[in-house]
Amino acid sequence: LIAETGEPYVNHGQTNQWLDPLFTTDAMRAVFSDRGRLQGILDFEAALATVEARCGIIPRSAAQAITSQAKAELFDLVALARASALAGNTAIPVVKALTSRVAAVDQEAARYVHWGATSQDAMDTGLVLQSREALGLIEASLASLSGELTLLAEEHKLTPMAGRTWLVQASPTTFGLKAAGWYGAVQRVRFRLSSIRQRALVIQLGGAVGTLASLGDRGLEVAGGLAEELSLGLPDIPWHSSRDRGAELATSLGILVGSLGKIARDISLLSQTEVGEVFESHAPGRGGSSTMPQKRNPVGCAVVLAAAMRIPALVGIALGAMVQEHERGLGGWHAEWETLPEIFLLTAGAAEQILRVVQGLEIDSARMRTNLEATHGLIFAEAVSMSLAAKIGRQAAHELVERACETAVEHKRPLSEVLAKDQNVTAHLSLSELLNLFDPTAYLGSAGKLVDRALAGEGT
Amino acid sequence: LIAETGEPYVNHGQTNQWLDPLFTTDAMRAVFSDRGRLQGILDFEAALATVEARCGIIPRSAAQAITSQAKAELFDLVALARASALAGNTAIPVVKALTSRVAAVDQEAARYVHWGATSQDAMDTGLVLQSREALGLIEASLASLSGELTLLAEEHKLTPMAGRTWLVQASPTTFGLKAAGWYGAVQRVRFRLSSIRQRALVIQLGGAVGTLASLGDRGLEVAGGLAEELSLGLPDIPWHSSRDRGAELATSLGILVGSLGKIARDISLLSQTEVGEVFESHAPGRGGSSTMPQKRNPVGCAVVLAAAMRIPALVGIALGAMVQEHERGLGGWHAEWETLPEIFLLTAGAAEQILRVVQGLEIDSARMRTNLEATHGLIFAEAVSMSLAAKIGRQAAHELVERACETAVEHKRPLSEVLAKDQNVTAHLSLSELLNLFDPTAYLGSAGKLVDRALAGEGT
Amino acid sequence: LIAETGEPYVNHGQTNQWLDPLFTTDAMRAVFSDRGRLQGILDFEAALATVEARCGIIPRSAAQAITSQAKAELFDLVALARASALAGNTAIPVVKALTSRVAAVDQEAARYVHWGATSQDAMDTGLVLQSREALGLIEASLASLSGELTLLAEEHKLTPMAGRTWLVQASPTTFGLKAAGWYGAVQRVRFRLSSIRQRALVIQLGGAVGTLASLGDRGLEVAGGLAEELSLGLPDIPWHSSRDRGAELATSLGILVGSLGKIARDISLLSQTEVGEVFESHAPGRGGSSTMPQKRNPVGCAVVLAAAMRIPALVGIALGAMVQEHERGLGGWHAEWETLPEIFLLTAGAAEQILRVVQGLEIDSARMRTNLEATHGLIFAEAVSMSLAAKIGRQAAHELVERACETAVEHKRPLSEVLAKDQNVTAHLSLSELLNLFDPTAYLGSAGKLVDRALAGEGT
Amino acid sequence: LIAETGEPYVNHGQTNQWLDPLFTTDAMRAVFSDRGRLQGILDFEAALATVEARCGIIPRSAAQAITSQAKAELFDLVALARASALAGNTAIPVVKALTSRVAAVDQEAARYVHWGATSQDAMDTGLVLQSREALGLIEASLASLSGELTLLAEEHKLTPMAGRTWLVQASPTTFGLKAAGWYGAVQRVRFRLSSIRQRALVIQLGGAVGTLASLGDRGLEVAGGLAEELSLGLPDIPWHSSRDRGAELATSLGILVGSLGKIARDISLLSQTEVGEVFESHAPGRGGSSTMPQKRNPVGCAVVLAAAMRIPALVGIALGAMVQEHERGLGGWHAEWETLPEIFLLTAGAAEQILRVVQGLEIDSARMRTNLEATHGLIFAEAVSMSLAAKIGRQAAHELVERACETAVEHKRPLSEVLAKDQNVTAHLSLSELLNLFDPTAYLGSAGKLVDRALAGEGT
Repeated sequence: LIAETGEPYVNHGQTNQWLDPLFTTDAMRAVFSDRGRLQGILDFEAALATVEARCGIIPRSAAQAITSQAKAELFDLVALARASALAGNTAIPVVKALTSRVAAVDQEAARYVHWGATSQDAMDTGLVLQSREALGLIEASLASLSGELTLLAEEHKLTPMAGRTWLVQASPTTFGLKAAGWYGAVQRVRFRLSSIRQRALVIQLGGAVGTLASLGDRGLEVAGGLAEELSLGLPDIPWHSSRDRGAELATSLGILVGSLGKIARDISLLSQTEVGEVFESHAPGRGGSSTMPQKRNPVGCAVVLAAAMRIPALVGIALGAMVQEHERGLGGWHAEWETLPEIFLLTAGAAEQILRVVQGLEIDSARMRTNLEATHGLIFAEAVSMSLAAKIGRQAAHELVERACETAVEHKRPLSEVLAKDQNVTAHLSLSELLNLFDPTAYLGSAGKLVDRALAGEGT
Repeated sequence: LIAETGEPYVNHGQTNQWLDPLFTTDAMRAVFSDRGRLQGILDFEAALATVEARCGIIPRSAAQAITSQAKAELFDLVALARASALAGNTAIPVVKALTSRVAAVDQEAARYVHWGATSQDAMDTGLVLQSREALGLIEASLASLSGELTLLAEEHKLTPMAGRTWLVQASPTTFGLKAAGWYGAVQRVRFRLSSIRQRALVIQLGGAVGTLASLGDRGLEVAGGLAEELSLGLPDIPWHSSRDRGAELATSLGILVGSLGKIARDISLLSQTEVGEVFESHAPGRGGSSTMPQKRNPVGCAVVLAAAMRIPALVGIALGAMVQEHERGLGGWHAEWETLPEIFLLTAGAAEQILRVVQGLEIDSARMRTNLEATHGLIFAEAVSMSLAAKIGRQAAHELVERACETAVEHKRPLSEVLAKDQNVTAHLSLSELLNLFDPTAYLGSAGKLVDRALAGEGT
Repeated sequence: LIAETGEPYVNHGQTNQWLDPLFTTDAMRAVFSDRGRLQGILDFEAALATVEARCGIIPRSAAQAITSQAKAELFDLVALARASALAGNTAIPVVKALTSRVAAVDQEAARYVHWGATSQDAMDTGLVLQSREALGLIEASLASLSGELTLLAEEHKLTPMAGRTWLVQASPTTFGLKAAGWYGAVQRVRFRLSSIRQRALVIQLGGAVGTLASLGDRGLEVAGGLAEELSLGLPDIPWHSSRDRGAELATSLGILVGSLGKIARDISLLSQTEVGEVFESHAPGRGGSSTMPQKRNPVGCAVVLAAAMRIPALVGIALGAMVQEHERGLGGWHAEWETLPEIFLLTAGAAEQILRVVQGLEIDSARMRTNLEATHGLIFAEAVSMSLAAKIGRQAAHELVERACETAVEHKRPLSEVLAKDQNVTAHLSLSELLNLFDPTAYLGSAGKLVDRALAGEGT
Repeated sequence: LIAETGEPYVNHGQTNQWLDPLFTTDAMRAVFSDRGRLQGILDFEAALATVEARCGIIPRSAAQAITSQAKAELFDLVALARASALAGNTAIPVVKALTSRVAAVDQEAARYVHWGATSQDAMDTGLVLQSREALGLIEASLASLSGELTLLAEEHKLTPMAGRTWLVQASPTTFGLKAAGWYGAVQRVRFRLSSIRQRALVIQLGGAVGTLASLGDRGLEVAGGLAEELSLGLPDIPWHSSRDRGAELATSLGILVGSLGKIARDISLLSQTEVGEVFESHAPGRGGSSTMPQKRNPVGCAVVLAAAMRIPALVGIALGAMVQEHERGLGGWHAEWETLPEIFLLTAGAAEQILRVVQGLEIDSARMRTNLEATHGLIFAEAVSMSLAAKIGRQAAHELVERACETAVEHKRPLSEVLAKDQNVTAHLSLSELLNLFDPTAYLGSAGKLVDRALAGEGT
């Protein structure tokens, strides 16, 4: 696995990687390190040689020699990077360097390196191999996150809290229902990612212009063998300039991070000083201030929110870059090279951070109760209104309660008091009926059933 | 159907719609007209009343009265728009106006308008209804486009042309293979869209904060009935602030338009004066110039390319807007309101234009042949190189032919001549073997088989 | 003026304009209406003829006839729009229709319509004329906004409130300083817009490919006259495919809306139920809910925040579309046509909404005081820390106070009590010194001076 | 200077930097390396201490000790990066580490590290220092580019070539005019960048919430001194959450790269095999193919075009991130951290690559002439049309020549022949007059004068 070839985090100062431990994970960083990229290309070359030997197109000994040298640690990345700047892509220098290394162990074998392929075949297949590994990491994080959210939703299925719309208290809901909403979105993303796997994880093999002409009439045979060797799908035709597969990966990760951003927005709002209903767990050194000793900043949420602001733009790059020319694009292809890796890196960071936030979430359900009382009953206006609506109609009830709310605010009196003095209300509701309407646990509707339904995976 | 309620194109000058006939279609414009939006909301209200009557929650006569008034043409859109600017959403004034109309025919029934629902329930479900109709229009265009591309790919399966990479001639390919590449991308999008239908086309019904509290313990029963009544899916829980479904629609249309943009880029490049291999069909008044009498501009391609530059950004808005607060977002939700409609409108225009371009495409296969000779043989360099590679190894052959190409360019001589004088070549290839390598039809590899494979829908 | 030719808001239902009264202004809508666009093109044609007559290139009578017909209300916009869809741009059908109209009044004059110009000359200059008018509207809104913010900053220069970082209470600040920060950003935008005027508001006149060949050797003379006639700048050379001027307009509006979005974010957060420090003013019918009678939603902020999410993407389109081909672009140019108008429309709406929000802002300075006490003194941690730092060093003081904060939180005790019992504190601060540190008005630093400075326009 | 502290390119494989030599420059990479970022923060801390000592706020010896340790090479970047992931920003661990180092040399001095500042003060000012250096690098590249473009425009002022609109040959122009258009756009960007310097290059100093409370009543004095010490501007008030300055930098670089992308698009289209008018210079190993020996790919243009596709999205992030909360943002601020650096890095790469492309540009003016004949005279249609227009009116002439063009295309005959047989033409033009119209050098209008004008910097 590519991820395992990566070293633990190091920093030599010459590059821009300070923020990597904050914005991504070590494991994803290993997948999309230069070594990971190189190994992806080399894995392609090794598999190609192996399959071509199996087909009798190149000698079996050549394949062995090539495979023996297809190890990232054997190569000089500085030289490759400098050569890539001249060549205009990463594969050309790798193929040259690999050929030299193979020649050193088996002169004859060197003839057959990269046989029949073009640079983009190696680069695209390598990226697909990296993507497969990256998807595995993301999916593992999401599985853990689903588990955590299930626990939250279960435990707080009936924990009442203020439902808020437009940032203003609206009607009571439960914290479990909120968590179930987060959970549902994560489940839908997991389904999407799993269905993309078979569409997007395919080999690239087309040769110079996609005809596989360099393999004579054996092109499809080699392609089929290569797909099997790498456990990837075999596409209908080469996709050098048909870039929807990578774009779909990018967009799906974009949807994922949007859903994670929603969780982070909710949690950060709930942890405002004046709301105080949930908090990121406190660890020494985490989320402090250089000048304010009391600060506990929601660092995890900040990282996720930042990713949710950055990734949509990166997805836009991936979509815009789809307009590629003829058999290989000029500019669009190159715009892709760092884009999908960057999306994966940021997504991994966001997934990891939200997982840690949710795992350690401190929940103050007493404060949730207190906040329900902050409006002196206004949050129960809909409950009263619907109760009266059954008697006097929806619109009339709405207007009656709307006026009572205005009175309550103006005179700073509890809504229940105002209503209890209104004959239009008391004509239809007894005092005890009225007061019951101000119990949050009595106006949670189907919250519990909806949580059950979501956790059971019912619905579409 | 919403689309059928639309009038033919009119323009009263006060709005920005001049370019609509260029950038979208009349049918899609009808779906996302104000009347279409209004009817979507009204269809929700009518269906809600019908189901609630069926469940015994409101009187059957009320449902009849409500349904009788739920017709877009009965409403004053100017008043609704002005009221929406105050209210902050479109549904509140619609509900008020509908209530007034219902009261005029049945005072009692007016009590039950919008019973148990919140504005966003009506707005979201209405948008889903519009989206369903819009998807139908897109899918119909794509079905036609697939048919046209199939014909092109079949007919030109073995029509040789220059394959071009980085905008430079590379190796021969066929026009059919190019068309099959376009076809494959369209097919993958069609598959994606059909699989989204069941995920994205679901009702919204949650009441004020998603608990369905206003429907007591009957919430799920009403929701189930509503989904059935409207032939939409029933989601696990309300999705007022979980916006992945719309985002997935947006991204899938983004991928579609990226794939269409690739076709348009190819065709416009092929129709450059100096290339001249294909042309958009010429119709009187189409693609002229106000000052240059000879001009035939590729108008269809321009529209598609413009859409492919605009839509990625709109998709980015949809993704960025997913970060919505609590039970209803502030800003993110509002950012969506015109975004998905705009994506649909532009996508429809792009799909329609590329369909017309492909339908009328004039193909000059003789010019394709002529252009294959433009480099005096350089385009066959890979063919020669691979042929020699079998004898002297890939890298050595590459370097030998590379030098020959440089000589040919420097001395303006055909590559075949240069090679025929090189003993390193003639030691391995006879003159007739060498000359055969300069026949484009002899170096098409698996082009034909790949076209067959793509059209047969093999591969992933 | 274009704006004055617009009708009051109408809505015929066939187009997507319901949300216009919410998201833009009537005046800006008139500028970027189809009539406004048409008049821009016609103003170009009239001025061109006038100047050419003045130069003796065309007869004076021709210019008179052309000018007499260059009135938007004389044209059939439906026909123009349909013809534009064929022609691929808006100017070709306008030129044809104008020629016909002129011919009807003066057959000879018809010869000279659009003399020497190309479509893009008319379209670009027309758009510049619209932009000039639009800039005027924006600048007027900003002037009013600056006035309102000045009042706020002055009045609340020393009104203490909680400063909040990472959404958490940090240290005291004043509401006036917050308003002065908003003010400063608006002033900087005003300066940018005024400096762009001279760079961006220039004529376009280049003829078919920018050489002005169709005007023989009189091209520069006509161009100079045209600039003067329209009171626009004269660019160095035609800019048909050098699109930085429009891009700069777009980006400056993008920066403006980002700054307005910041104001809206602040206000909406301050008006959360649990914070309650400021509110959008309440008007009947504004910001209500269809189901919750008590709701007062911050509609103005929502509109501004939505614009701040949408416009960055539109700016991205404008920047991406700069890559235009040769002497006139294919796709990039077309992608611009609706983009700058849309940016102006949304910007006008955002500016108008934030102006109304700020004008009507209800400020509860008592609640600001109450909220300062919400943390039982934690918000004064930095004040204490800096006071101790003078005695024991910054880092040591920071750590001492950090521990005290932890103790205060854990035991739910006021920070002042905890500190008063700590010998490391009392060794350096007397009780009265310590308690003074918990007075918000005593720890406002340079807040007042900074407000003065900002309002006086000092600094860069 | 930060740039000089950077090492030559190294690559240890664990990070994603393979493509840096292709997509950016070593010098810009040094500016935005982790060491560069760290030095920026340290330069702030040193200057702050120096100024505070000068003001008598901290001891002079403390300032000396702090300054002596404020050297990036003394710090452990791995530890800083790991600590930043916990702390949530880069400055907190730097301040701690700096305090430790200072304590080791002067225990007393350690008390005064970071006195009165907040993390963001250090981070923002550090970034401004990096930006100043980065702007210098960009401006130097642009100065060279302007010089090269001046040479091109001068030399080819009257070199005729086909003007092309919508990718189709339109009318003759000159290569010098094209180059002058590129030049003009670069000059406008240079002007914009120089005017931004004074607006954007300002210090940040506000303390915890922008009041400078931690400096008592000495805040403005220290701020003024700091600005002077660092040769930066002094802003009106702290801008912790007013982010227009950085956004303006980002957008200006976005406009620059759009203008460079236009040059790259033009050059890459002109270097297509079938056009062949200009070429990137050929260097060994540059722009080859792994499989096609004859390939010379326009690598420089590809890099610039890729940047022009990526940067608009990054600018969108910068604009979207402006919506920051209260006195310090949550998410928006964090989204900025890598965005402006990335924009600078890609911009530097694009500027460097286009400079090299233009410097080495091979121009085939003979081929330009040949291509002017490709349409057998159609490219002169406007010339003929304008000539006839003087006699029979613009529209009539346009239609007459349009028909002649159709005849010429249909019967594959030169346009001059077709026209010479048309009595409507010969009635107004003699044969020699007619043939003169087919001389490209006779229909260049004001091309030469426009080049002079642009190079002289006339116009706006």
